[in-house]
Amino acid sequence: MAGSLACWSRSAGSRQTLKDFGVAEVFEDPAECVRGADLVIITTPVDTAEATFLAIAPGLAPGAVVTDAGSVKAAILVAARRLPAANPFVGAHPMAGGEKAGAAHASAQLFEGRVCFLTPTGSEDPQALAAVRRFWQELGSVLHETDAAKHDEIVAAISHVPHAAASALMLAVMEQPGFRRFAVGAGLRDTTRIAAGEENLWVGIMLANARHTAAGLRDLERRAAELRAAIEANDAGSLRRLLAEARIARQNLDRPE
Amino acid sequence: MAGSLACWSRSAGSRQTLKDFGVAEVFEDPAECVRGADLVIITTPVDTAEATFLAIAPGLAPGAVVTDAGSVKAAILVAARRLPAANPFVGAHPMAGGEKAGAAHASAQLFEGRVCFLTPTGSEDPQALAAVRRFWQELGSVLHETDAAKHDEIVAAISHVPHAAASALMLAVMEQPGFRRFAVGAGLRDTTRIAAGEENLWVGIMLANARHTAAGLRDLERRAAELRAAIEANDAGSLRRLLAEARIARQNLDRPE
Repeated sequence: MAGSLACWSRSAGSRQTLKDFGVAEVFEDPAECVRGADLVIITTPVDTAEATFLAIAPGLAPGAVVTDAGSVKAAILVAARRLPAANPFVGAHPMAGGEKAGAAHASAQLFEGRVCFLTPTGSEDPQALAAVRRFWQELGSVLHETDAAKHDEIVAAISHVPHAAASALMLAVMEQPGFRRFAVGAGLRDTTRIAAGEENLWVGIMLANARHTAAGLRDLERRAAELRAAIEANDAGSLRRLLAEARIARQNLDRPE
Repeated sequence: MAGSLACWSRSAGSRQTLKDFGVAEVFEDPAECVRGADLVIITTPVDTAEATFLAIAPGLAPGAVVTDAGSVKAAILVAARRLPAANPFVGAHPMAGGEKAGAAHASAQLFEGRVCFLTPTGSEDPQALAAVRRFWQELGSVLHETDAAKHDEIVAAISHVPHAAASALMLAVMEQPGFRRFAVGAGLRDTTRIAAGEENLWVGIMLANARHTAAGLRDLERRAAELRAAIEANDAGSLRRLLAEARIARQNLDRPE
């Protein structure tokens, strides 16, 4: 793909990990890192995107294309206005990764076969868009192009709301009088796995996608209350109907759209 | 373990599957099935326990010990009063299985290393309790003895509330305007996996453990509302504190108690 790779991380520990990989030159200064690059990929947390764009600006060569990997796109599109006018930005969001953060959890197959959103505005240089498409495709991603607003609505439904729900469930379960770790099985482990994600990353994501995430949480509260009402009323018919609707929807997740 | 095995299922399909396994005699009548047995294991859904106890009663030999595998214990202890006085009952709940129901999903290693609750009342024949202990231990279960009320409180926290939460999340997600199946990843799949469970089984469980399950759902609603309030108020501090508390609790699930 690239003739050469250069990396920067704000964390000294991650810089050392990256040096130990031995595949890229590692920089302590972001502007120095991007100097002479054709393509720059920003992977800092979403609430630091603007600061990162400002930090790299002095080093960017005219025409260098910038993309990112942030979990929200509308807010980052606004932040990208801080880039020099000579540097096109094309937002990207690879749907990959896990609850373990940091360079130490790197994987060469991370993006293979996974959906990667691109959110072009339609007004960018076609060559810049082509370069960003090529980059993510060469990592094995399955591209899906949409606008930033639609992207944010989609990822709220399938990622940000489930994350908040897993956290809410973990908080609720830990305060139940019957909570005992020895008896915990795959059910609770799986339903709460993503709640182990690093909170600083997720605070930025949820606040940058606040409207859709809050709307989904409100629906979760309403649906939980419906189930509870059926249980409290000993209403087997309503409870069966709700659980069946959820079962069918869950089974459909495993079928092609 | 046993000199011989006899099975009954109300479903003709499951009876055929059991016949095809070729390890047990398969009966069409529950009273005929238990005739001459030393130990009888009831694994019908919890809301049919009473009917099953009544159905086997005519065939039970005096002294034959009865146990079960139901996910609630207080309600089944009440139902077990329908057994003849000469037949001791010791409630059991092996914490194993999955969202796929039926004999076709049988596994010889299902109970290996998994917690199995026993809920003796303290007034049963010690030999009956010993026989039930031996049965579950020989399947590889790790026994945990407690009373039926405490058992129901524990499993509400670690199983019944998470199941209802997974169903509520699936119902909420499917109605979000941004819900698109093509982009769904491991996060939503794992948080909702148990919602694929068979609703007829879970209606019985949740209604038989209504008080604890409803209390947990109420706490889920409250915790989701707290997260939502922090998001709506753009309150990074409160949101970070809640997500961090959930992360730590989730990470602790993977540590020994």
